[in-house]
Amino acid sequence: MASLDSSTMEQRWARAIEQWQRLLGEDGVLSEPSERQRVESATFATRQRVPVVLRPANRAEVQGCLRIASEHGVSLYPSSRGRNWGFGSRVPVEDLCGVLELGLMNRIIDFSEDMATITVEPGVTFQQVFDFLEERGSRLFFNVTGSSPWSSPVANALERGDGVGPYGDRTAHTCGLEVVLPDGRVVHTGMARFDGASTATLHRWGVGPSLDGLFAQSNLGIVTRMTFWLKPKPKVLQVVRFRVDDPERLAPLMDGMRQLWFEGTLRSSTGIWNDFRAFSSRRGFPWELGTPLRRDQLEAMISEGVWFGLTTVYSAHEKQAEGNVARLEEALGPLTDLLAIASRVEGDDVRDALIKGTSSMLAPFGDVNAAFKLMSGIPSVASQRSMYWRKRNASADFQTPEADRCGVIWACPLVPLHGRHAAEANAVVEGIILAHGFEPLLGWVIQQERVAYFLVLIIYDRDVPGEDDRAMACHDAILEACKTRGWIPWRLGIQSMQTLPAGRDDTDGVLREFKRLVDPQGILAPGRYVSG
Amino acid sequence: MASLDSSTMEQRWARAIEQWQRLLGEDGVLSEPSERQRVESATFATRQRVPVVLRPANRAEVQGCLRIASEHGVSLYPSSRGRNWGFGSRVPVEDLCGVLELGLMNRIIDFSEDMATITVEPGVTFQQVFDFLEERGSRLFFNVTGSSPWSSPVANALERGDGVGPYGDRTAHTCGLEVVLPDGRVVHTGMARFDGASTATLHRWGVGPSLDGLFAQSNLGIVTRMTFWLKPKPKVLQVVRFRVDDPERLAPLMDGMRQLWFEGTLRSSTGIWNDFRAFSSRRGFPWELGTPLRRDQLEAMISEGVWFGLTTVYSAHEKQAEGNVARLEEALGPLTDLLAIASRVEGDDVRDALIKGTSSMLAPFGDVNAAFKLMSGIPSVASQRSMYWRKRNASADFQTPEADRCGVIWACPLVPLHGRHAAEANAVVEGIILAHGFEPLLGWVIQQERVAYFLVLIIYDRDVPGEDDRAMACHDAILEACKTRGWIPWRLGIQSMQTLPAGRDDTDGVLREFKRLVDPQGILAPGRYVSG
Repeated sequence: MASLDSSTMEQRWARAIEQWQRLLGEDGVLSEPSERQRVESATFATRQRVPVVLRPANRAEVQGCLRIASEHGVSLYPSSRGRNWGFGSRVPVEDLCGVLELGLMNRIIDFSEDMATITVEPGVTFQQVFDFLEERGSRLFFNVTGSSPWSSPVANALERGDGVGPYGDRTAHTCGLEVVLPDGRVVHTGMARFDGASTATLHRWGVGPSLDGLFAQSNLGIVTRMTFWLKPKPKVLQVVRFRVDDPERLAPLMDGMRQLWFEGTLRSSTGIWNDFRAFSSRRGFPWELGTPLRRDQLEAMISEGVWFGLTTVYSAHEKQAEGNVARLEEALGPLTDLLAIASRVEGDDVRDALIKGTSSMLAPFGDVNAAFKLMSGIPSVASQRSMYWRKRNASADFQTPEADRCGVIWACPLVPLHGRHAAEANAVVEGIILAHGFEPLLGWVIQQERVAYFLVLIIYDRDVPGEDDRAMACHDAILEACKTRGWIPWRLGIQSMQTLPAGRDDTDGVLREFKRLVDPQGILAPGRYVSG
Repeated sequence: MASLDSSTMEQRWARAIEQWQRLLGEDGVLSEPSERQRVESATFATRQRVPVVLRPANRAEVQGCLRIASEHGVSLYPSSRGRNWGFGSRVPVEDLCGVLELGLMNRIIDFSEDMATITVEPGVTFQQVFDFLEERGSRLFFNVTGSSPWSSPVANALERGDGVGPYGDRTAHTCGLEVVLPDGRVVHTGMARFDGASTATLHRWGVGPSLDGLFAQSNLGIVTRMTFWLKPKPKVLQVVRFRVDDPERLAPLMDGMRQLWFEGTLRSSTGIWNDFRAFSSRRGFPWELGTPLRRDQLEAMISEGVWFGLTTVYSAHEKQAEGNVARLEEALGPLTDLLAIASRVEGDDVRDALIKGTSSMLAPFGDVNAAFKLMSGIPSVASQRSMYWRKRNASADFQTPEADRCGVIWACPLVPLHGRHAAEANAVVEGIILAHGFEPLLGWVIQQERVAYFLVLIIYDRDVPGEDDRAMACHDAILEACKTRGWIPWRLGIQSMQTLPAGRDDTDGVLREFKRLVDPQGILAPGRYVSG
């Protein structure tokens, strides 16, 4: 479309906007400069222009929006709640796409206390689900993300984001997607495609080929409904904190983690954060020291600890909890310099138990009660602070990092859950970040048995001239270095869709054909994971 | 193709066979009557004619076979080890397809002791994987199926069959499929599509849309390689047996099961079998009583027990095992009439502990040591006996049910893991089976948290005139009755591909288009789950 002259393009958009207004009403079609600027802004530099924001309220309106886009040959890019922070926020991958904001589609469609399921639209937030369960006095909880209370679970799952606590691999614990294809057709995944199927919200595979996987990290359809699986509140909840003080201990720690995941002692999302990351999430930037904060400066402030780990164990009986403590002590004791397991038995107070180390060593982990809340599915804004770490004057509520000119870029290499790989990846990435003049804010999330999700965070101030370019160069260098070592990213920002290595087979071609089949004009989210 | 006159068809096949012979050699192309009869026989009546059996030895030969089929407009139907017993064995869904037997593709391609993965071709058997691990003195084990030691893990996973013990939902614990599309192109799923990806065998999703789901229960490609995840041998293995003596107790038992799965006390495949099924798998048919065996006759022989359950708990520490016993006693004690937990700590002898009931009540479960072997990944032929239950003169090795004229038909409705549903499904199905003059051989397999795989087995003697028709009528009536109640099957036999309810959306149409895209002539397994 770039080759069309601009007046033709403008006419197309004008005609399409007219029709969208008829479909959605004036309120459903936003094109004033402030709105456009809102969706054109990310937490890093972007150039994409967005001609219009559409706000459909239901599936039929989504279909109508797509039909009109198709008629006029213009593209749309869906966004649920716009919290894709560090990956591009609401900004489309390509220039000149309208943004289809699904925030008005915020109904909770179905809920079962017995079967522990909830079916929601993409505009529903984590906070909304939490409130819904609280109001009903439900004995169930929904695991949150490390992001915002106002993030969308549907979007989180479709980006293969992780959940805190159980069902950390969120994607694996969803089913029954309702999807509008770009050509307006509708599919339901699994058993949900059959009327009256009693297992529509209970089973991922269905019968015959399974389509769920096609709609995660893709542009093959707009998911307008999805079922999430919930967990009963446990009899005993245990928050496990551990620490190593020597960088050489990362490798054996990761090998120990793999063993604990294989055997099933650990089954909940496990985070392991380095000293920079732990420090940045607890304290403001020490401006008196200048930027970047150097390792020797950091070490002068926090005398102990190189890696800080946090996980949870959910048990249905106190003796199971005791058994898990015994096993964790046996397996993690020799690998760590601090091991603390805090327990809460059904509504009782938290009892903190140090297995190894002293209580002063717990300080960098922050308040244990906050961890209990988070691990019980209570949404929190705490983690949003970290986006503002390099901003001297942070806004009051940490809610608008784009407008506040926070610089935030994630890089997400997928690394084998193996000590040698983790240590090497850490060294490679830390070296690149230091060379680019940023702090290495590094973490690992383990939510499956065989891989570690490496979470590399670049935080900077977009108001510092040149930092946008320098930060993105750093990010790109990280992805490139990881790629050549076989650590392919598990998630991409809008700026990186073209950075995957060339495949060794026909997958790209087949995906492109699937795309053309459901979207012959390429009107839905062009360039997003699947090229046109 | 049915509309072509038969001489044209014969010429096509003749020319194709000539080319296949050039490609595979004489030994790779079998068309003598005995071979054709072998692949035309199932454990129920079929009419499909198979003109030829092809035996490619590698991926290139698979591609060559497909190219030749495409050139001549004839169809091929893949079979790994041919143990699709009760679902059609090696017989194609449609008439006049060649059978592509993948048994020569039996290489173990890759293995990692550290990461607990094994990558195999479709001709590899469970026995072969077991022997491979034993030879290396591996500390890992591979969970078997309830089928034969000579079944194919790849085929089992692609049919979404279940595993015994951990990773019961086998499909969820595979990745890195290599797939030859009908048009000869090759795709690898997940990270395996990138050269040198260190997570190729470790992660299912990859980056971007995930394709694995497309190739299970489908005809969209031939899987020529797949990675399976293994488990370390546990410190403590516990075999849990339980029983209820009153049919009314099934519903609360199933609700209790759901709770134990939700909380994670149970995570291994759990089987619950009715009295008929338990009896038939332990004892020969009491011919002196005539057929069918009536419930009152059965009850006269086994005085106690209506449902017999078996599951396992794998622990890494003795205290964890103790905790699990405490919880199982608390949760299952009130719901059962017998509860026995036998434990084995690393290589030690089995210690049997009765929680509730007397040891005489354990008899119908058979030898507990056999259960330990099976749950440790040691393949067994034991379950194959049941196929011969209605045969007066069984062959020595129970290996050739088709040639021995065993009648075996499975029906597989998927039912919510909920007491009311399970009890109702059981009543409906038992009624239909009794009305058709067969024994209700019923079981449930639980390998996920929210669904129960209902395993309905019809066993008969194909040499009894009329039984083929009567058994299939019974099977069809079961599927129909379940369908109208929302219990859609999770797996289909070759005779039932057309029995799914009409979808409420465009899924069928989209699947058909995917099929045409990769298989424009419909040469691969026409009619199998996806219609052409």
